Amino acid sequence: MGNFKGHALPGSFFLLFGLWWSVKYPLKYVCRKNKSACYLGSRAGFQRLEFVEGIIKAVFALIGMVAEQFVPDGPHLKLYNYEEKHWDHLMNWQHATMYLFYGISGLVDIVAHGTNALPVAMDRMMLSLAVFIEGFLFCYHLHGRAMLDIHVHQLLLFAIFGAAVCIFLEVFFRGSIVLEMLRTSLCILQGSWFWQIGFVLYPPNGSPEWNQTDHTNMMFLTMCYCWHYAFAFLILAVNYTITTWPIASVEKGKHSSSTLLTA
Amino acid sequence: MGNFKGHALPGSFFLLFGLWWSVKYPLKYVCRKNKSACYLGSRAGFQRLEFVEGIIKAVFALIGMVAEQFVPDGPHLKLYNYEEKHWDHLMNWQHATMYLFYGISGLVDIVAHGTNALPVAMDRMMLSLAVFIEGFLFCYHLHGRAMLDIHVHQLLLFAIFGAAVCIFLEVFFRGSIVLEMLRTSLCILQGSWFWQIGFVLYPPNGSPEWNQTDHTNMMFLTMCYCWHYAFAFLILAVNYTITTWPIASVEKGKHSSSTLLTA
Amino acid sequence: MGNFKGHALPGSFFLLFGLWWSVKYPLKYVCRKNKSACYLGSRAGFQRLEFVEGIIKAVFALIGMVAEQFVPDGPHLKLYNYEEKHWDHLMNWQHATMYLFYGISGLVDIVAHGTNALPVAMDRMMLSLAVFIEGFLFCYHLHGRAMLDIHVHQLLLFAIFGAAVCIFLEVFFRGSIVLEMLRTSLCILQGSWFWQIGFVLYPPNGSPEWNQTDHTNMMFLTMCYCWHYAFAFLILAVNYTITTWPIASVEKGKHSSSTLLTA
Amino acid sequence: MGNFKGHALPGSFFLLFGLWWSVKYPLKYVCRKNKSACYLGSRAGFQRLEFVEGIIKAVFALIGMVAEQFVPDGPHLKLYNYEEKHWDHLMNWQHATMYLFYGISGLVDIVAHGTNALPVAMDRMMLSLAVFIEGFLFCYHLHGRAMLDIHVHQLLLFAIFGAAVCIFLEVFFRGSIVLEMLRTSLCILQGSWFWQIGFVLYPPNGSPEWNQTDHTNMMFLTMCYCWHYAFAFLILAVNYTITTWPIASVEKGKHSSSTLLTA
Repeated sequence: MGNFKGHALPGSFFLLFGLWWSVKYPLKYVCRKNKSACYLGSRAGFQRLEFVEGIIKAVFALIGMVAEQFVPDGPHLKLYNYEEKHWDHLMNWQHATMYLFYGISGLVDIVAHGTNALPVAMDRMMLSLAVFIEGFLFCYHLHGRAMLDIHVHQLLLFAIFGAAVCIFLEVFFRGSIVLEMLRTSLCILQGSWFWQIGFVLYPPNGSPEWNQTDHTNMMFLTMCYCWHYAFAFLILAVNYTITTWPIASVEKGKHSSSTLLTA
Repeated sequence: MGNFKGHALPGSFFLLFGLWWSVKYPLKYVCRKNKSACYLGSRAGFQRLEFVEGIIKAVFALIGMVAEQFVPDGPHLKLYNYEEKHWDHLMNWQHATMYLFYGISGLVDIVAHGTNALPVAMDRMMLSLAVFIEGFLFCYHLHGRAMLDIHVHQLLLFAIFGAAVCIFLEVFFRGSIVLEMLRTSLCILQGSWFWQIGFVLYPPNGSPEWNQTDHTNMMFLTMCYCWHYAFAFLILAVNYTITTWPIASVEKGKHSSSTLLTA
Repeated sequence: MGNFKGHALPGSFFLLFGLWWSVKYPLKYVCRKNKSACYLGSRAGFQRLEFVEGIIKAVFALIGMVAEQFVPDGPHLKLYNYEEKHWDHLMNWQHATMYLFYGISGLVDIVAHGTNALPVAMDRMMLSLAVFIEGFLFCYHLHGRAMLDIHVHQLLLFAIFGAAVCIFLEVFFRGSIVLEMLRTSLCILQGSWFWQIGFVLYPPNGSPEWNQTDHTNMMFLTMCYCWHYAFAFLILAVNYTITTWPIASVEKGKHSSSTLLTA
Repeated sequence: MGNFKGHALPGSFFLLFGLWWSVKYPLKYVCRKNKSACYLGSRAGFQRLEFVEGIIKAVFALIGMVAEQFVPDGPHLKLYNYEEKHWDHLMNWQHATMYLFYGISGLVDIVAHGTNALPVAMDRMMLSLAVFIEGFLFCYHLHGRAMLDIHVHQLLLFAIFGAAVCIFLEVFFRGSIVLEMLRTSLCILQGSWFWQIGFVLYPPNGSPEWNQTDHTNMMFLTMCYCWHYAFAFLILAVNYTITTWPIASVEKGKHSSSTLLTA
């Protein structure tokens, strides 16, 4: 994963999920408020969406695990090199472990929303754990790297642990639109910051490398992280408007027409 | 911002908001309790106040951002100095970023209280994030400064992160007078401590500078911080009394007169 | 305060409050459960108790502040020594500041329970802040002391911050017997640990001093701290039994006699 | 305890409790949902189970304490060696202290579920404290050991403090199946990790020792910890299925037969 693609790929996954959530949750919220205007807005429909989301999550995680194992310079399921007496490709194994927990979270989604054997709130707890494990492994991942490298990954940890806490709160405050928006914004932030890390540490197209020991670079990146977050909120605002506008105006139209009729 | 004015200005903003809140929230509380005695106390009136607050917040943030960019020794929107190959005026850019999030919080206030498109609780979440981002940027702001300088800014962080947590709790316990008073006290503390930082690091009127490496100075300032907080509660108590006294006594008067009439 | 008495005195105050609470809260709990058996158990009676508690707290705090200022080697309200250009008796000032916040908490108790001008939950918030400020000042109190000295004070911080969090939770879960018992146990722990600190750092009766740099001393004291906590729970259990036994048996007696009558 | 057995024994206790909980809580959940299909599922039955659990916990803790004191190289209740002037067998005393708090937790369980003198929520608070004290003593236990030794014990702390927080939350959200499953998973994790520590630090059967200073060993063990957790969830899933399947299908059978009858 130590190259540009290795950061762009997971970044794209997180962006994808973030963007999808930035459409789904406003839609769900506006449907709950204006029940008559919503054709998809039945509870069953949204439950089926969560089921499909679980399948996609599980499939992505499976692909991720297989890819980490069987890329040309991957471990091919070999964990310990007995000849040279050292662990083999630990990085790939760690990434596969991260994917594993997202896979478990996907499976729990499928069972919780496809059958009624499991309590529904388990999906949030497993997702929270999957995100926490991602952050946990990142924490012990950075030993002995350069200052700037550590810094950009530490910034990522804020988004990761913030999301883990936020999702854990959702176990108790399920369906709170505020927490769902917060989670969505942190997910988009994580996705776009993965891309940023790729650009900073492995500049594509032969741009010159960043100076890893310059303190002003660190200060700029801290600020840049905040801009990414502001940008995530911009995306959220745009998608929120696009999603809720038509339904709200349909509802308004109905109200005014029914007012006309009764008048 | 590295001068006396640069600390007095944001300090005044926080003091202004703190003082205003120390009038508004007791008023709201006493109006909710004694409904008959309150002419302004309608829900709509307080919602309009929040709307106006949002506008003022957004305007202040805009002025702050413009000022940080276009002061004589500011960056004038130039982020990177290509000739000398270094980042330009990063401090000013960081301060502008802090203002940016307060601006976003103001915009969310305007939309959440001016229309009914957004869930109302979003205003607290964005304010909490804005305060958190302020603290987050301060954390990475202090590299390589003198001991006393770092210490007075670290003390500030208690007020900032305390406020961020308190406001986040308000998402779930909205309208809790206890949390609102706590937030108000932390806001006044932040404002008055900004002034104190100005006096310590950039003593006006040619007073001698503080010894930056004397440990007893640090101990005094820690204690002084607590006195500022006690002072914030004094202000809160005075404003609370002034605000709630007339309404409570009007209410009492009515009660006794209605008791007379029915007697 | 740097002597045996200076630790035994505050320790006694905390023990006193802890022991009182270990009687009061079980009594309140059992009265709420068995309403008929309780003559004191009216809500008004317990509110009057909280009022009296506030007065005692405020008086103790005032005495503490005056004592810290006017003991023979105290600062006598002098904060800065202008001749020798250094801060005067900062330790005493810091302790007085701690007492100040307990005094404010006492005042808030008096107003909240004596009038109905203040929301009742403010008493818990101010107490939580007073305890937090105590811990906050302790944190910056320990610079440059010996290892064992720092360690025993750090252990104290667990009880202090634990109590602060517990009391803050009581703002939202007021009257939860579990939180009240937890607070009581932490208060007794704090009191008895103050005495222990006195015995360790300033052994009375000319016992030999503890070796401040021996690591096994540190390990023993950590364990000893846990024993103090177990002891606090023993006291709590004894007082709980003594307090609730008579009322519960009166209640039982009534039940059986009324069963006899109806039979 | 510094040998393989000393880690396998507590590990087995935690595994035992974890496995038992992984049967009990799903059973309780499915019984609450399908009331008619459950013969054991009466509230009284489950309360009696908690009572028995308390007895077992208290007995185990007593055995643990006695064993730590009276093993051949134990302290035999001697705390201080007056001849050689040093503390005696502090490790054993610390372990006995850990068991002491689990014993107190067991006693509280017995009283809270056997009589109605104590509020029921006290059992969770005492268990939370017992787990916290275990973690607290572990924190000050690791001074001066080798890097890998410290690391594997630090990993354990995540499971311990995670469980303490989770159980404390159960005071307020009692009976939440999500928190109960989380606690169960962390308990299994703790148990299996104790075994892993035994294998790493004291390899039985004369296998070669692990290199205590190799950083890749640390990285592998961090990942291995996550695998243990995934394994804990696998066990949980299997037991959940085995436990809830028969009752759910009985319930279904009844439904369909009653549908047949009414048809």
